[in-house]
Amino acid sequence: MKKIGIVGATGYTGVELLRILSVHPEVEITFVTSRSNVGTRVDAMFPNLRNYIDLEFSDPSSDALAECDLVFFATPNGVAMKHTASLLKKGVKVIDLAADFRIKDLDIWRHWYDMTHACPELVADAVYGLPEINREKIKGASLVANPGCYPTSVILGLLPLLESQLIDLDRIIADTKSGVSGAGKQANVATLFSEMGESFKAYGVSGHRHHPEIAQIFSQLSGEDVDLTFVPHLLPIIRGIHATLYVNSKDDVELQTLFEARYKAEPFVDVLPIGSHPETRNVKASNMCQIAVHKIENKSQIVVLSVIDNLVKGAAGQAVQNMNIMLGIDETTALMRPALSP
Amino acid sequence: MKKIGIVGATGYTGVELLRILSVHPEVEITFVTSRSNVGTRVDAMFPNLRNYIDLEFSDPSSDALAECDLVFFATPNGVAMKHTASLLKKGVKVIDLAADFRIKDLDIWRHWYDMTHACPELVADAVYGLPEINREKIKGASLVANPGCYPTSVILGLLPLLESQLIDLDRIIADTKSGVSGAGKQANVATLFSEMGESFKAYGVSGHRHHPEIAQIFSQLSGEDVDLTFVPHLLPIIRGIHATLYVNSKDDVELQTLFEARYKAEPFVDVLPIGSHPETRNVKASNMCQIAVHKIENKSQIVVLSVIDNLVKGAAGQAVQNMNIMLGIDETTALMRPALSP
Amino acid sequence: MKKIGIVGATGYTGVELLRILSVHPEVEITFVTSRSNVGTRVDAMFPNLRNYIDLEFSDPSSDALAECDLVFFATPNGVAMKHTASLLKKGVKVIDLAADFRIKDLDIWRHWYDMTHACPELVADAVYGLPEINREKIKGASLVANPGCYPTSVILGLLPLLESQLIDLDRIIADTKSGVSGAGKQANVATLFSEMGESFKAYGVSGHRHHPEIAQIFSQLSGEDVDLTFVPHLLPIIRGIHATLYVNSKDDVELQTLFEARYKAEPFVDVLPIGSHPETRNVKASNMCQIAVHKIENKSQIVVLSVIDNLVKGAAGQAVQNMNIMLGIDETTALMRPALSP
Amino acid sequence: MKKIGIVGATGYTGVELLRILSVHPEVEITFVTSRSNVGTRVDAMFPNLRNYIDLEFSDPSSDALAECDLVFFATPNGVAMKHTASLLKKGVKVIDLAADFRIKDLDIWRHWYDMTHACPELVADAVYGLPEINREKIKGASLVANPGCYPTSVILGLLPLLESQLIDLDRIIADTKSGVSGAGKQANVATLFSEMGESFKAYGVSGHRHHPEIAQIFSQLSGEDVDLTFVPHLLPIIRGIHATLYVNSKDDVELQTLFEARYKAEPFVDVLPIGSHPETRNVKASNMCQIAVHKIENKSQIVVLSVIDNLVKGAAGQAVQNMNIMLGIDETTALMRPALSP
Repeated sequence: MKKIGIVGATGYTGVELLRILSVHPEVEITFVTSRSNVGTRVDAMFPNLRNYIDLEFSDPSSDALAECDLVFFATPNGVAMKHTASLLKKGVKVIDLAADFRIKDLDIWRHWYDMTHACPELVADAVYGLPEINREKIKGASLVANPGCYPTSVILGLLPLLESQLIDLDRIIADTKSGVSGAGKQANVATLFSEMGESFKAYGVSGHRHHPEIAQIFSQLSGEDVDLTFVPHLLPIIRGIHATLYVNSKDDVELQTLFEARYKAEPFVDVLPIGSHPETRNVKASNMCQIAVHKIENKSQIVVLSVIDNLVKGAAGQAVQNMNIMLGIDETTALMRPALSP
Repeated sequence: MKKIGIVGATGYTGVELLRILSVHPEVEITFVTSRSNVGTRVDAMFPNLRNYIDLEFSDPSSDALAECDLVFFATPNGVAMKHTASLLKKGVKVIDLAADFRIKDLDIWRHWYDMTHACPELVADAVYGLPEINREKIKGASLVANPGCYPTSVILGLLPLLESQLIDLDRIIADTKSGVSGAGKQANVATLFSEMGESFKAYGVSGHRHHPEIAQIFSQLSGEDVDLTFVPHLLPIIRGIHATLYVNSKDDVELQTLFEARYKAEPFVDVLPIGSHPETRNVKASNMCQIAVHKIENKSQIVVLSVIDNLVKGAAGQAVQNMNIMLGIDETTALMRPALSP
Repeated sequence: MKKIGIVGATGYTGVELLRILSVHPEVEITFVTSRSNVGTRVDAMFPNLRNYIDLEFSDPSSDALAECDLVFFATPNGVAMKHTASLLKKGVKVIDLAADFRIKDLDIWRHWYDMTHACPELVADAVYGLPEINREKIKGASLVANPGCYPTSVILGLLPLLESQLIDLDRIIADTKSGVSGAGKQANVATLFSEMGESFKAYGVSGHRHHPEIAQIFSQLSGEDVDLTFVPHLLPIIRGIHATLYVNSKDDVELQTLFEARYKAEPFVDVLPIGSHPETRNVKASNMCQIAVHKIENKSQIVVLSVIDNLVKGAAGQAVQNMNIMLGIDETTALMRPALSP
Repeated sequence: MKKIGIVGATGYTGVELLRILSVHPEVEITFVTSRSNVGTRVDAMFPNLRNYIDLEFSDPSSDALAECDLVFFATPNGVAMKHTASLLKKGVKVIDLAADFRIKDLDIWRHWYDMTHACPELVADAVYGLPEINREKIKGASLVANPGCYPTSVILGLLPLLESQLIDLDRIIADTKSGVSGAGKQANVATLFSEMGESFKAYGVSGHRHHPEIAQIFSQLSGEDVDLTFVPHLLPIIRGIHATLYVNSKDDVELQTLFEARYKAEPFVDVLPIGSHPETRNVKASNMCQIAVHKIENKSQIVVLSVIDNLVKGAAGQAVQNMNIMLGIDETTALMRPALSP
């Protein structure tokens, strides 16, 4: 049994890691930290974990983290970068679910996250943990930057087209919609039930942190600069992201075949039959990404629909997928369960 | 035009007062305060009020309040009691939407609200603003304690039975369910969308502040001590209270006739036909209370169902009803609008 | 008092017409029909209308309709076209809330609605009831085709740009999201609470009836054929449409000024300050359309956000606005009320 | 591998059986029927099951059912009773998730279900499938009547008190609230999203089919007739039942100890610490029943709070639990997974 630590396990990605890992047959959660809840039983805060997690929250400064095989950081941006170097030195592998190691260009990172990076030397080596493009690198990685939720849905939706150089790169539109859990568990008027219920809105039209993250991968995949318009919206649901992606094809392509071939071997990307409209509930509580690709009749317009559960494939599930790869465990372990519907 | 001030207009009862009063033909909102938002336009915080309210938030310490005919306190508990005496002296009428003047017994009040009362001498004179029992007193009142949301739904549901001495007083059960807006607009993890959505729970089984408020009125109506069990629950809706009330009849009573007769002249209490089940949406955004009364076949058990919009008849609407009565305006002015359905 | 009839008042646009008209000071609802509910009290079906509507549903074949000044058809597509000619002959004005008279090209209409038109001769004369473009024509009209909900939100969002010839017409993208009430009140598995709740999806990517309706108006406004991609989505809310509109500017334009100037005199279009993100709840239960216009930095990309309540400005409210204009009543009568928030 | 058939797998309990059984290591789903969907792939109707169920719906009249080890009927009331006798004769075990075999008194059954029973001779032998009271009988049973959702939550909530004869039997009140999925997947106006969302109501105050089912078990447990008032309500959530149970204690009892002792060995009943308020989300997607028991200070009043997922412990999960027991599989197989939260 591999020993696993989780730093900052009181947020939504933290409790989701606990839900998935608590029934993982090849790892043991040995250490769960929360600075402000030291001594509290984990299942007192998360009653859904009663009978599954028999631990208390510990102080993150403890030496016990160094005895883990792998540590997840489910912390706010800017925390993992302070602790990763010392863990790596002690031979502990690290997966950061926040954004500390996602952006290679440190100036861009500083601009969007408004901090000076605490360990810039590790950024270049960190592997962007999207197994569908970086599986081999993840296998050998000590430090994985787990992708953002929006980027996962958008990149997987356009990956076959970008790799094949089949679309115009000068006007890609990603109209994305996320459930409220993506905003985290902080006390905040804006995400109260009475503020979010029975309503819908866009936000961050002038700029969002996931834009440079997506753009970096798009450039890498296509070999060119990409002109991306990215507009996020907030859905009155707890879990789920739906990306509606608009691109122009350069040639006449057999889209369905292209997508199916690209993802045939991928356990967590599922290309739906022609004409489908994936619903976010198709993947609720599961690590699957469902994709449908539409060509508008007599036009060059392609519309790709991509759905994930933002807390699973968009965060904790993908992190466990990365952990499995890094620790030499079968990649799908603890992740093969049908979505919850209805 | 009467001049109206609202202290603490940034919460849900505040914005609801603004929504109703902005189209009231006989009053003018002249002064809206919020200590932490001085200088902010009201409609910048509440975009639903654009084109209806052309005011900025002011500091509550201003002398301008004294020039109003009537001031609403839509503040947290413990605020109105500090300012009411000086306003009353200047001839300004006051309606407190919080609990400062609801409980006559100051020891009970201190126990439940954990404060020492700042103006105990005013408590006895304050009128409990439930027009269905206190209309005449409200007419002459300078200070009205606007009832709590749960108490309004529970008291109106049992009023005809208590007045008629027709039920056992030693086991009254009020199983009540409230929308989340009743918990206010404070930043709070417990009322986040992701915490409240797709879930339901009871709370405060061991005690809730509205229990003594209801018990006080029940004793007053029946002339005896009443044994009330009160269990509140939180509904994943924004607006609405549903009270399910269980009492035992002492005699064979014609319940439907009793209720219809008692409420015939009341503009905001509507007794539904026999066999009805009122839905909270029947009264959404309206000042109406809908009631259905059921006698269980071959038993002494009576079940009363009572619904209100917690922000309207349970707060701001009832406050405007009280204001109309206090200022000599027709009681239903600005309050006669059908509920919003669906 | 003008006499008003409503044919097919049991659906969501029907009950919304009743809600608005029941407190309209210059009209009287004299006749409400429903073939399958003859004799049922209107408020037995819609308890939110208790004390506001004292009528029973009548048979639509009755002669009483001919005695109305104006009749609304809140019926499925294909009903109004069978009855309109005879009503017009008797001097009764007609507003159809369905699609029978919206599309001028009868072939296109037949293709999308899969019916032969019963009175093609009236189609040319029918006025498309969007007051913001056709106010003068509506004044003199006997027959008004009330616009669809999506078209209202999309057309108002792009109207200033199209009229000014300021955008490329060869790639306009309308990513639209609607509350479930837009799907109507028919018994249908797909719109059950358990199917729609906690989920989100696109639909009709390959084609939707509102596409030709929007395209017709776009061509009319711009004088050219327009290449529009229109993708509708279903939101897990009851009321509200949010359109996110992507267009490319041809020149450097002062967008905010353009929009504000165009809509300055419009009572029901509200251009928000620069940088705003309208929420659908800002207009819930109100006839307002709120619009925000964003220019993406250093790009030609314009993003317009437009929200309406699909049952009000998207259906019944706009129909009443048209009725007011047609009957010489002040256009805003019964429609000036702040939205419901929260 | 045991062979399993499911008759009527297109409703919510059916798809939930498929979700749970698709990853059960000791059974194989060999046959899934739906009269109206013969030939349709199961995962075309339920996209959450893609990659988990590789079957088409078959005709229920096929002989293949007789080759199963066990058949679930996830059909409307009145279907299982027509097919059970012939299956039992062929040695196939049967679990009915509907009500055909729950009520022992055939007159009562006929009254509530308005049908003549097709195989009355099997009713006496059928075992009521609540493992917490009938585990030993279920082990040897060929025919199990899977309990209703409300009865499961109410019976488990009061079981320790009824067995111990510690409460008055002449006034038990069960105020219960259920998610909408309990109403099934039939096309129905009353359970549309726009009808159920943002609202709450009681129903069936004058009588509900689960009343006699609960009363039968209560009498059996207590040895006496029991006076039960049962009021169900509909919650605007998909999954979850919350029962609030009011009883009077006859003696001074150590309630917490009583409940903990009674359920210590039960894998799927979890007694929460003193003072707890279980939320329905604590058990979402899980087979657990969480219970909290409250004694009101200085009174004989006991309030028990009990939550289940109506589709799991209230239907499909409990059915799988029964299947495990009947087939000699470890009782918790495929059912030990933490609930989904948030």
